[in-house]
Amino acid sequence: MTITITAFANALDRGRGLARDMRVRWALEEVGQPYDVRLVPWEKFKEEAHLARNPFGQIPTYEEGDLTLFESGAIVLHIAERFPGLLPSDANARARAIMWMFAALSTIEPSIVDADIVEYAERGKSWQGERKAMVNERIRVRLSELSARLGDADWLDGDFSAADILMVHVLRRLEGSGILEEYPSLAAYIARAEARPAYRRAFAAQLAAWEAAT
Amino acid sequence: MTITITAFANALDRGRGLARDMRVRWALEEVGQPYDVRLVPWEKFKEEAHLARNPFGQIPTYEEGDLTLFESGAIVLHIAERFPGLLPSDANARARAIMWMFAALSTIEPSIVDADIVEYAERGKSWQGERKAMVNERIRVRLSELSARLGDADWLDGDFSAADILMVHVLRRLEGSGILEEYPSLAAYIARAEARPAYRRAFAAQLAAWEAAT
Repeated sequence: MTITITAFANALDRGRGLARDMRVRWALEEVGQPYDVRLVPWEKFKEEAHLARNPFGQIPTYEEGDLTLFESGAIVLHIAERFPGLLPSDANARARAIMWMFAALSTIEPSIVDADIVEYAERGKSWQGERKAMVNERIRVRLSELSARLGDADWLDGDFSAADILMVHVLRRLEGSGILEEYPSLAAYIARAEARPAYRRAFAAQLAAWEAAT
Repeated sequence: MTITITAFANALDRGRGLARDMRVRWALEEVGQPYDVRLVPWEKFKEEAHLARNPFGQIPTYEEGDLTLFESGAIVLHIAERFPGLLPSDANARARAIMWMFAALSTIEPSIVDADIVEYAERGKSWQGERKAMVNERIRVRLSELSARLGDADWLDGDFSAADILMVHVLRRLEGSGILEEYPSLAAYIARAEARPAYRRAFAAQLAAWEAAT
């Protein structure tokens, strides 16, 4: 069955691979599954056709036969359950990999997204600088804890898994903030992931989509 | 094997069941599994014994034999996979239930948590009122979309599932804000969930723990 995902027709990040379709592209490349991409322009996000795929009008979505999914975390988990290579077979190790998927999205991502909200939605507000410092401090607490747990391991828990896809992509949103450089082991973790052939193919594909749109 | 979870020794919500151990207690009650509770006082959250269970020093955690998990979403999913009753058996319906678990935590919860950050961490700041209005507007956008998708259904996608546990618990954090009252179908959805015997047992258990601590 053909897999079709959605992505921004014209990503705000100018092809840096920060939009969440990158997570799904990367997972599909890791498991060696081809996929089609439906590019959705901004003005169509809240229209009926896209809301039928995702009631919150976001990308990515995933269509495969009768199944339509939204939420990048759920899509990556579905891919990891459907095709081999992204989850350990040992039951406890599998549960821990899924735990780290939730950790990436529930414990690490929210304050990183909040930093973008301060940057863009609170631009020009008198409080922007003070709020930014508060949010960055929350980010640093989490990165310190994450870095302490990662130690000198290559990946979050044993072999590379779906959790590393989500965690690396969440962390990449901090690129350019200067914060990642304070945690060399996390910067090295991201670089290790970016060197994977599947990552590079996914990155090239989303970049090509952005270049074609501009 | 005995299941042991952690919870606040003295919850800030004064027994209102808003801490995330409530999600795990509720899931365990739905599947009829007994559990022990290890109450952790604030001052021990960042100590080695608890960080070994959760590197981010949060509750709840879940211990069962050799397996230790953190992240309430992952724990509820683990319980739903381990014991029958919280996930559909049809593969596509199961994937959609898991999708709604991620939607509750990734799309709905962050702005609701942000409202608490404005309330508590930004108390006394000159911008508190303006920021609160901005955050509440983001919450309303999501609740409108959620309410539109829910329609007049009882649960998010077919039968009651683990996704409803997470979504209802996330929404309950808005109690007292006045916002839920703007979405009668969501208020009814919460009330429907709260009427479940498993919910009531879980709620009573966390309330008893709070009362015993005070």
